Amino acid sequence: MGNADLAFTDMEGPRRVPIPPARPFLDTFQANLKETFFPDDPFRQFKNERGSRKVLSAFQYFLPVLEWAPKYTFNLFKSDLIAGITIASLAIPQGISYAKLANLPPILGLYSSFVPPLVYAMMGSSKDLAVGTVAVPSLLIASMLGKEVSAAENPSLYLKLAFTATFFAGVFESALGLLRLGFIVDFLSHATIVGFMAGAATVVCLQQLKGILGLQHFTTSTDLISVMESVFTQTHQWRWESVVLGSCFLFFLLLTRYLSKRNPKFFWVSAAAPLTSVVLASLLVYLTHAENHGVQVIGYLKKGINPPSVTSLDFSPPYIMVALKAGIITGVIALAEGIAVGRSFAMFKNYHIDGNKEMIAFGMMNIVGSLTSCYLTTGPFSRSAVNYNAGCKTAMSNVVMAIAVMITLLFLTPLFHYTPLVVLSAIIMSAMLGLIDYEAAIHLWHVDKIDFCVCLGAYFGVVFGSVEIGLIVAVAISILRVLLFVARPRTTVLGNIPNSMIYRRVDQYPIAQSIPGIFILHIDAPIYFANASYLRERISRWIDDEEEALKTKGRTSLQYVILDLGAVGSIDTSGISMLEDLKKSLDRRSLQLVLANPGSEIMKKLDNSKVLEGIGHEWIFLTVAEAVSACNFMLHTQKQADSTGTRDNLV
Amino acid sequence: MGNADLAFTDMEGPRRVPIPPARPFLDTFQANLKETFFPDDPFRQFKNERGSRKVLSAFQYFLPVLEWAPKYTFNLFKSDLIAGITIASLAIPQGISYAKLANLPPILGLYSSFVPPLVYAMMGSSKDLAVGTVAVPSLLIASMLGKEVSAAENPSLYLKLAFTATFFAGVFESALGLLRLGFIVDFLSHATIVGFMAGAATVVCLQQLKGILGLQHFTTSTDLISVMESVFTQTHQWRWESVVLGSCFLFFLLLTRYLSKRNPKFFWVSAAAPLTSVVLASLLVYLTHAENHGVQVIGYLKKGINPPSVTSLDFSPPYIMVALKAGIITGVIALAEGIAVGRSFAMFKNYHIDGNKEMIAFGMMNIVGSLTSCYLTTGPFSRSAVNYNAGCKTAMSNVVMAIAVMITLLFLTPLFHYTPLVVLSAIIMSAMLGLIDYEAAIHLWHVDKIDFCVCLGAYFGVVFGSVEIGLIVAVAISILRVLLFVARPRTTVLGNIPNSMIYRRVDQYPIAQSIPGIFILHIDAPIYFANASYLRERISRWIDDEEEALKTKGRTSLQYVILDLGAVGSIDTSGISMLEDLKKSLDRRSLQLVLANPGSEIMKKLDNSKVLEGIGHEWIFLTVAEAVSACNFMLHTQKQADSTGTRDNLV
Repeated sequence: MGNADLAFTDMEGPRRVPIPPARPFLDTFQANLKETFFPDDPFRQFKNERGSRKVLSAFQYFLPVLEWAPKYTFNLFKSDLIAGITIASLAIPQGISYAKLANLPPILGLYSSFVPPLVYAMMGSSKDLAVGTVAVPSLLIASMLGKEVSAAENPSLYLKLAFTATFFAGVFESALGLLRLGFIVDFLSHATIVGFMAGAATVVCLQQLKGILGLQHFTTSTDLISVMESVFTQTHQWRWESVVLGSCFLFFLLLTRYLSKRNPKFFWVSAAAPLTSVVLASLLVYLTHAENHGVQVIGYLKKGINPPSVTSLDFSPPYIMVALKAGIITGVIALAEGIAVGRSFAMFKNYHIDGNKEMIAFGMMNIVGSLTSCYLTTGPFSRSAVNYNAGCKTAMSNVVMAIAVMITLLFLTPLFHYTPLVVLSAIIMSAMLGLIDYEAAIHLWHVDKIDFCVCLGAYFGVVFGSVEIGLIVAVAISILRVLLFVARPRTTVLGNIPNSMIYRRVDQYPIAQSIPGIFILHIDAPIYFANASYLRERISRWIDDEEEALKTKGRTSLQYVILDLGAVGSIDTSGISMLEDLKKSLDRRSLQLVLANPGSEIMKKLDNSKVLEGIGHEWIFLTVAEAVSACNFMLHTQKQADSTGTRDNLV
Repeated sequence: MGNADLAFTDMEGPRRVPIPPARPFLDTFQANLKETFFPDDPFRQFKNERGSRKVLSAFQYFLPVLEWAPKYTFNLFKSDLIAGITIASLAIPQGISYAKLANLPPILGLYSSFVPPLVYAMMGSSKDLAVGTVAVPSLLIASMLGKEVSAAENPSLYLKLAFTATFFAGVFESALGLLRLGFIVDFLSHATIVGFMAGAATVVCLQQLKGILGLQHFTTSTDLISVMESVFTQTHQWRWESVVLGSCFLFFLLLTRYLSKRNPKFFWVSAAAPLTSVVLASLLVYLTHAENHGVQVIGYLKKGINPPSVTSLDFSPPYIMVALKAGIITGVIALAEGIAVGRSFAMFKNYHIDGNKEMIAFGMMNIVGSLTSCYLTTGPFSRSAVNYNAGCKTAMSNVVMAIAVMITLLFLTPLFHYTPLVVLSAIIMSAMLGLIDYEAAIHLWHVDKIDFCVCLGAYFGVVFGSVEIGLIVAVAISILRVLLFVARPRTTVLGNIPNSMIYRRVDQYPIAQSIPGIFILHIDAPIYFANASYLRERISRWIDDEEEALKTKGRTSLQYVILDLGAVGSIDTSGISMLEDLKKSLDRRSLQLVLANPGSEIMKKLDNSKVLEGIGHEWIFLTVAEAVSACNFMLHTQKQADSTGTRDNLV
C-alpha cells in the first residue's frame, strides 16, 4: 500500500481526467463513415495527384492490369507460362465435372474457364488467384434451380435460369464491392466456414454415388438420409462396371494427392492426375467400346469458343425470383471463398489487396460470363494453391490458362467424346475429400470449444438438412455468438499485486490482494443497451455477495466501489443511464461510486448528459491506483476522526 | 523513462504472465450457461432449504402473493385502497377507449381491467405496476387482424381471432420467461423505444381524427400520407358537433395534464379528468339528446362480469397464422413495456424484481384473460405512474381496481349508454400526446447523436410505413448498431504520461509522449471473426503511417510494436489466427511483436493453439510499462553493441 499512497500525496493535487473538447458532429460522423467503409484507405496513393493524372489513376484503380502490364518481363512470363499450363490441366477436367454437378451441359465448364479468367486478369488484384468454377455453388445451382425447373425435362429454360442467376450474382457482387459492404463477408467466422464447407463437400460426395454406382434414378434431396435411402433401396441396380472403374480412378487420384502432400515438390503429380485420369479412362472406353455396355460417357462436345448468351437471360416472372435468390446466395458463397483465397495468398507473399475492389472484379467477371455462356466462377482455393505452388508471378497465369482452354475448345473437344462420367465423379470426390478439413476441426476443439460446436452445427445443418439450411444455421450461429458476447460481458474483481501499483484480476493472478473497505470491479466490454440492465444487476449482485462475505468473515464493510472502465471502449445513452442508476442505488446503500480510467467517449457523454456532475468530477481518476490512494486517504482520515471523536466522548 | 527502467531492473527477473490451468470444458460451459440465463441467480435464497420447505419455496417463487399477503397490514391497505380507486377512475374510461381503438366491443375494455389484474396480483413481483390495456398493442391488433378480417363485417370471427391472438401472446410471454430468454427484450435500445413509441402515439392520434371529425369512412392504413388524404378529401363530411365537443374535452384533458405536471401534488387532477369528462359528456348528450343529431354514442353495454370465452378460441387455419403473428408481435411489445415499467419502479423504490418471473406472470395473465373474454393487457407506464404517485404499497392496489371495475360491470354500465365516442377519442389523444417524449429525444441529441438518428429512424418507419415496418426498422437498426460496433473496434496509439509509468491514448491526453523505436497500439474491443481481418489491416496501416512519419521527420525507425491487450475481453480462433499472421508479417518487416496485459482467456487460447510458442512467452508482459522497459533495455544494449562495433571498426 506504501507506493500507492505516494502516488497521491506527492502530486500538487489529484490529476483530473480531461473532458475532450466538443467536436462538430459532422466531423465525427465523417470520420466514422470513413473508418467503417474505407478502413484500408485505398485512395491514399492518389491524394496528391491532379487533373488528368487523377483520371488515369482512377482507370488504374479499376484495371490493375494497366499497372503491372507495363512492367512485365520475359522472366515473369516463363513462370506464368508453367503455372498457367499446370492449372489448365486441372481446369479442363474439373470444369467439365463441376458443370455436370450443376446439371449443366459439360461444355459450359470449359467456357467458364475461358472468358472469366481473362476478365479477372484485367480487373483482379491478386497475383496468385486462379479463376474457375467451384463445387459448392455448382451444387447450390443444381439444387435451388432444380426445385423449380427440371434440368432433364426442360433443359433450355434451366440453362436460361442458370445464366440469369450468374448475372444476378455478378451484379450483387459488384454492388457489394462498390458500396464497400465487403465487411459483410467477415461475418462468416472461420469455424462456420470449416463446418459449412465440410458439410457441403460431404453432400457433394454423396451425390457422386449416383455416378459411381451407375444408377439412373436418384433422389433430388441432398441430405444424408435421403441419399442413403436412395442408394440402398436400389442395390440391384448398381452397375459393377461403373463401380470398378470409378473406384480404381478414385484410388489413383487419392494416391497422387497423398504423395503430393507427403512431398510438396511433387505437387504437379496431383495437379496432372485428373487430366491423366480423363485421358486414360477415355482410351479405356474407346478400346473396350464400354459405352455400349452401359457406361455413360460425355458424348458430343461442340467445337468452338463461347457463343454469346445475351438473349438467354430471362428476367420474366415467375422464374425471376428463383434466379435472383440462387444468384445472391451462390454469389455470396463464391465471394467469401474468393476473398479468403485472395487474402491468404496476399499475406503469404506480403502484398496487399483491397477486398472491395476484388469484389468488383469478381462481379464483372460473372456479369461478362453470363453474357458469354459461362456460369458462376470465383477463385477456388485448390486451383489457386496449385497456381501458387507452380510458381505463378502475376495474373498472367490466368491468361495462359484461358488460352490453353481456348485451344481445347477450338480443336480438342472430340477427345472427350469417350470420357466416362464415372471418372468425372471420381475427380469430384477426390477434390471434395480435400475440402473436409478435419485437422482444422480438431484444432478448433483444442483452442476454442464453442467454435468447435459452431463448426459442428454448420456441418450437421448441411448434411442433415440442406445446403441452404446449413448456410442459414451457420450465419445465424455466427451472429448469435456476436450478440451473446455483447449481451453478457465479463465483470471481474481486481486486486493489488503486492509491492506495486498494478491491479489485476484476482481469478487470473492469485497473488492479487483485496483492499479493506474498497471493492474494485473491472468491466470487460462496451456498455450499451444490449447489456446495460444485465450489467446493472450483475454489479449489484457482486456488491451483495462481497458484503455478505465480508460480514461472514467479520471484516470492515465496504465504503467505496471503484469501476475500472479501461476496457469499456464505447458507451451509449442506455449505458450512461445505467451509470446514473448505479450512482443513485449506491448512494442509497451509503457506498461511494468511483470511476477509474474512462475513455474520452465516456467522459464526453457523461458531461453532455450531466451525469458527470451527479457523480462528481473529483471521483473520476486516471488509474485504479490513484483511485485506491484517494479512497485510502479518505478512509484513514475518517478513521482518525472517528477515533478522535471516540476519545473526545470518553474524556 | 527513469522510473520505467527501475521497474525492470530491480526485479529478480521479468514477471511472466501466467497461463491459466486447464479447466474441464463442462465446468466452463455450465458456468457460461448459468451467467447467460440466470445472471441474477434467482434461486440463491433457496439454496439451503430441504424437502417440503423447497416445495413451498417453489410455490412462493411462482406466486409471490404467498409471500407478501401474510405480512399485510391495515395501514398498507389504506394506501392501496386510495391508489386502487384512483387507478380505477382511469381504468374505466381508458379501458373502453382502447377497446374501441382495437375495434373490439367497448365492454371488453372493462373485462380486461377485471380478471388480468387479479391474476397479476397473485403472480406478479412489482409493487407499483398497475395492469390494464395499452394503446399500441390495441392499435396493432386492429391493424394486423383488420388486414384479414373486417371488424365491421365479421365481428364474431374478429372477436375470436382477438382472443386467440391474446392466448398466443400469453403462451409466448410465459415461454420466454420459463426459458429465461428475457434478455431478448434488452435488444430494443432506449433510443429505439422512444422513437417507436412516439411514432405509434402519433399514428394513434391520427386515427382519432376519425372520431373527432365525426367521419364515417376512413382509411385502414395507419401511415401519415393515407390519413391526411382521407381527412382532407372528406372536408365536407366533417361534423361540427363532434369537432366542438371533441376539441373542448381535449383542451380540458390537456389542461389538467399540464397542471399536474407543474404541481406534482395535483396528480389526482389528471387522473380523475378522464372519468369526469366521460360523466360530463354523457350528461351533455343525455340532456341535449345529441345522439339524435348524429353524435355517435357507445350505446348498450351488457351488465355482468366476464363471460368465459374458452369456446371462442379458434385454432383452425387459415386464420391461425394471422392470430399467431399478431399474438407474438403484440406480446413482445407489451412485454417490453411491462418489464421496463416494473424495473423502473423497482429501481425508484430500491427493491429487486426478476424479469423472467415477471414475464411468466404477464403470460399467465394473458392466457387466463383470453379464456375470460379479455384481450391483451400489460402494465402501462401512465397507469403505473398514477398508481405510484397515489401511494400504492403492494399489488393489492390492482385488486382494489379490479373490484371497482367489477362493481361498475355489475351495476353501473347503463351510465355509459350516452357517452359520445368523440370524448373517448379525446381521452386517447391526450394520453398519446403524453407518450411523445420529445424531451428524451432532445436529450439523445445532446448525448449521442447516433442514438438520436436511431430514434428518428424508428419514428419515421412507424409514421410513414406502418407499425410493423417501424418495429422491424427499430430492431434492425439496433442489431446493426451492435454488429457495426463489433466489426469496427477502435485502435489507438498510446504514449507515456511524463514522470510516471502510465500509458494513455495520445488523442485523449496531449501530454502523452511517444518513445523512440517503440510503437504502442491499444485495441479497444474483443478480437474475433467479425473484426479480425479489419484489425489486421488497420494495424498494418497504423505501422505504415508511423514508419512513414518517422522517415519524414528523420527519427529512429521502429523496432518494437507493443499491443496493449488490456481491453480485449475475449478472443476466438479467428482472432488467434490474426495474432499469428501479425507476428509473421512483423517478422518479415524486422519488427518485434510484444504483447502487454493479455487476459487469461487470451493466454489460454494462445497456449492451446501453440501461437504462444511462436510469439515467445518472454515477449508477453504484465503491463505496458514493463514491456516498454524491456524494449528500451534491448535498444540500449543494441546501441552500445553497435557503437562498440563502430569503435572497433574505426580502431
